[in-house]
Amino acid sequence: MRFAKRVENIQVSAIKRMPLLAREVPGAVSLGQGIPSVATPAYIRRKVSEWLETDPAIGKYSLQPGVPALKSAVAGVLAGKAGREVDGESEVFIAAGAMEALFTALVSLVDQDDEVLLFDPGYASHIEQVLFSGGRPVFVPLSEETDWSLDEGALRRAVTPRTKVIVVCNPLNPTGKVFSAAELQCIVAVAREYDLAIIADETYDFLVYDGRPFPSLLSFPEIRDRLISCYSFSKQFAMTGWRVGYMYAPPSVIDQALKVHDAAVICAPTISQYAALAALTARPDDEADIKAILQRRRDLLLSRLDRLQDLFSYVAPQGAYYVFPRYRKTQLTSEMFALRLLHEARVITIPGSAFGPSGEDHIRLSYGAAEEEIDEAFDRIELWNAKLND
Amino acid sequence: MRFAKRVENIQVSAIKRMPLLAREVPGAVSLGQGIPSVATPAYIRRKVSEWLETDPAIGKYSLQPGVPALKSAVAGVLAGKAGREVDGESEVFIAAGAMEALFTALVSLVDQDDEVLLFDPGYASHIEQVLFSGGRPVFVPLSEETDWSLDEGALRRAVTPRTKVIVVCNPLNPTGKVFSAAELQCIVAVAREYDLAIIADETYDFLVYDGRPFPSLLSFPEIRDRLISCYSFSKQFAMTGWRVGYMYAPPSVIDQALKVHDAAVICAPTISQYAALAALTARPDDEADIKAILQRRRDLLLSRLDRLQDLFSYVAPQGAYYVFPRYRKTQLTSEMFALRLLHEARVITIPGSAFGPSGEDHIRLSYGAAEEEIDEAFDRIELWNAKLND
Repeated sequence: MRFAKRVENIQVSAIKRMPLLAREVPGAVSLGQGIPSVATPAYIRRKVSEWLETDPAIGKYSLQPGVPALKSAVAGVLAGKAGREVDGESEVFIAAGAMEALFTALVSLVDQDDEVLLFDPGYASHIEQVLFSGGRPVFVPLSEETDWSLDEGALRRAVTPRTKVIVVCNPLNPTGKVFSAAELQCIVAVAREYDLAIIADETYDFLVYDGRPFPSLLSFPEIRDRLISCYSFSKQFAMTGWRVGYMYAPPSVIDQALKVHDAAVICAPTISQYAALAALTARPDDEADIKAILQRRRDLLLSRLDRLQDLFSYVAPQGAYYVFPRYRKTQLTSEMFALRLLHEARVITIPGSAFGPSGEDHIRLSYGAAEEEIDEAFDRIELWNAKLND
Repeated sequence: MRFAKRVENIQVSAIKRMPLLAREVPGAVSLGQGIPSVATPAYIRRKVSEWLETDPAIGKYSLQPGVPALKSAVAGVLAGKAGREVDGESEVFIAAGAMEALFTALVSLVDQDDEVLLFDPGYASHIEQVLFSGGRPVFVPLSEETDWSLDEGALRRAVTPRTKVIVVCNPLNPTGKVFSAAELQCIVAVAREYDLAIIADETYDFLVYDGRPFPSLLSFPEIRDRLISCYSFSKQFAMTGWRVGYMYAPPSVIDQALKVHDAAVICAPTISQYAALAALTARPDDEADIKAILQRRRDLLLSRLDRLQDLFSYVAPQGAYYVFPRYRKTQLTSEMFALRLLHEARVITIPGSAFGPSGEDHIRLSYGAAEEEIDEAFDRIELWNAKLND
C-alpha cells in the first residue's frame, strides 16, 4: 500500500520505542517513559468503583466537549491558575490526554509548510505532531551552559514570514527547565510582534522544586486571544493510563479543536473523566504529596549522577521529573548509547536525539521510578561504566 | 487566529450536534446518537472494580499497541471471524475506539486530493475523516428503490486515477443495510482491478437480524494485503464511553497507524482495555443477549413507523440499530425537519444530510433506546404529525 506523506514523515517517538525494545530484555529497570511508579491514588479508584455500581452514564459517550461536572471543576482550577474567570462551557474541552489536546491544537493551526518554533531540546511528540500536520519544526536551541536559558537572539532569528506557532512546554520535558517570568515575557513579546499563536504544554506545572515559583503563560492577559494551554491529569494524579487532560483556549479555537476531537476519538473516555472529577473533588486531606515524593527521588538521582562524574555532566532540573545528562568518554550516538545501556546494563533510558538536534550526546532519565529502582538502575550503570573504562 | 484548511473543511457531525442542541430542550427523548440504553454489563464493571483494587497497572500507560492479553484475546476473536490464524503481535492494534482506528487508517493512507469512495448514504464521520486528511470524498449512491442495493455501474464510474481507498461500513450506518456476499465480491473485484485499499468498518457485525448471514470482508483472502478492518467494543458490549476498539491490518499498515496513534493519544485508555478483556473473557453464560433486545426494539420501531405511513416510508434495516426513513408531505430540509422535531415534538433525531447527498429528505432514528422511549418518542411524533396536517 502507498502511505500518506504525513505518516512517512513521522516516527514512533523513542520514548515509546525503548519500552517496546525492552520487552526483549528480561529484568530491565526503567528510567525511560515518564510513568510515576505510584498507582492511581486509592481515593480516585474507590470513587470510580462506586460510580461503576451506581451510575450507568459512566459507560456511555459523554457530550463531546466533556462531562459537564468535570468541565466546571476544570474551569475552577483554571480560574485559580489564571487569576480570572474561566467559562467551562466555551473555553474548555476535555481531551483524551494532554497529548490529544496538543495534537488537536497543532493540526487545527498548522497548514502545509507552516513553521512552528520548538525549543530544543524539547518534547519529542511535539516534533512529530508538527510533522504530521505538514508543518516544519524550527528548532530554537536553549543554552546548556547557562542552565538551558532562553537566547532571545536565537528566538528572533528563527522567526520567518511562515512562522505561525510557538510551542512552550513549561516545565520543559526532557530537561526539567522552568522558564522564568522574564523569559516568558520575551516569548510573549515575540509572539505579539509577529502575530504568532502560542501552544503551552503545562503538564508539569505542579512539579517545580526548591520552592521556586511557576510562572504560567496564563498570567499574561495580553496573549489571551492567542494562547492555547494544554493540561494533563496523568502526572499530577498518577493517571497516565486513563487518557484524560484538557485544553483551555479562546472559544473560536475550542470550536475548531472539537471538530478534530470528534473525528478522532468522539469523546474522552467517560470513566476517565469521572476519575478526573474524583481527583479534583474527592481528595482527602491526608493524601500523600506526589511532589514531595518526586523531590526526594530527584535528589537521590542527582546524588547518584554526582558519583558518575567521569561519565555524565548535567544541569539540575527545576521541574517535571526528568534529568537530561550529557555523557562524556564515548563517541556513541545517543541512540547507540541508550541501546547499549539497555542491552548491557539492562537499564531503559531515552536517547537524547529524540528531543531535537541539541539532544544528541544526552540521554533522558525519568525519576518517576521508585527509589529502589533508581538505586538499582544506577548500581547497574556504575558497573557498566567501570567496564566502559577498560 | 488563522486555522488550518483541514479543520476549516470539516464539521462536528450532526450526530453530535443534535444532542448538544438538545440540552436546551428539557425532557427531549432521544432517537439520536447510537447509544444503547443498557448500561455496560455488570460482569464487566465488577471485573474492572476488582482489577482497580488489585492491579496497579490498570492506571498506567499500556504498551502503545495495547495490553498484550487483550491483543491476544482480540487475535482469537479475529481468527474466528476470518477463519485463519491472526498474529496479535504484528497485525492488531488496540485503538481508542473504532473511530480512532478508522481515523488512523484514513490519515495514514490519504494524501492531499486523493479520492476515497464512500457509499451514500453512509456514516457521517467517514466523510469528515476523509476531508481532514485532505482527500476528496466521492459518493457512490446506493439504490433506495431496491433496498439500498449496490449499483456496480455507479461504483465503477466513480473510480478515477486518483482513487486510493474504498470505505465499506457493513452493516451500514445509517440505513442498516447489510452488503451481500455478491455485493462484497463486486467491491473486492473493483479494489483489485484498480489497486485500491479497502477500509472496513464492521462495528455492527454482530447485529444482523432475521437469521440473515453476515458476510465479512475478512472472508476474502485475496484482499488480505489491501484490507484494513476496524472493530468496536462500544455497541456489542454497551461500552460506548470507554473508547476502545481495534484495527486488524497487514503489519506494514499497523506500523504506520501506530505512529499516528502515538502522536494523537499515546495508547488506548488502559482501564478500558481491561474492560474489553473482561468483555471477551469473563462473559457469564446467562448474560442477556443484546441482539435479541435490539431485534425487539427494531420490530417495535418499524411497527410505529407503519402507523405513520402518511409521513414516512422506509427500507427495513437488516443490521445495526438504525432506520433511515424518508419523509413525505413537507419540503423541509432534513436539517430543518430534525430541528422542528426537536423543538416542537421534543424528539432527537439526526438529519439525513449528515450522511451524504443521498441522505437528504431522510432522518436517522436509532433504536438503541429502550422500548418505552421509542414508544414515547413516536407518541410525540404522531401528535406533531397530526398538527403538520393542519
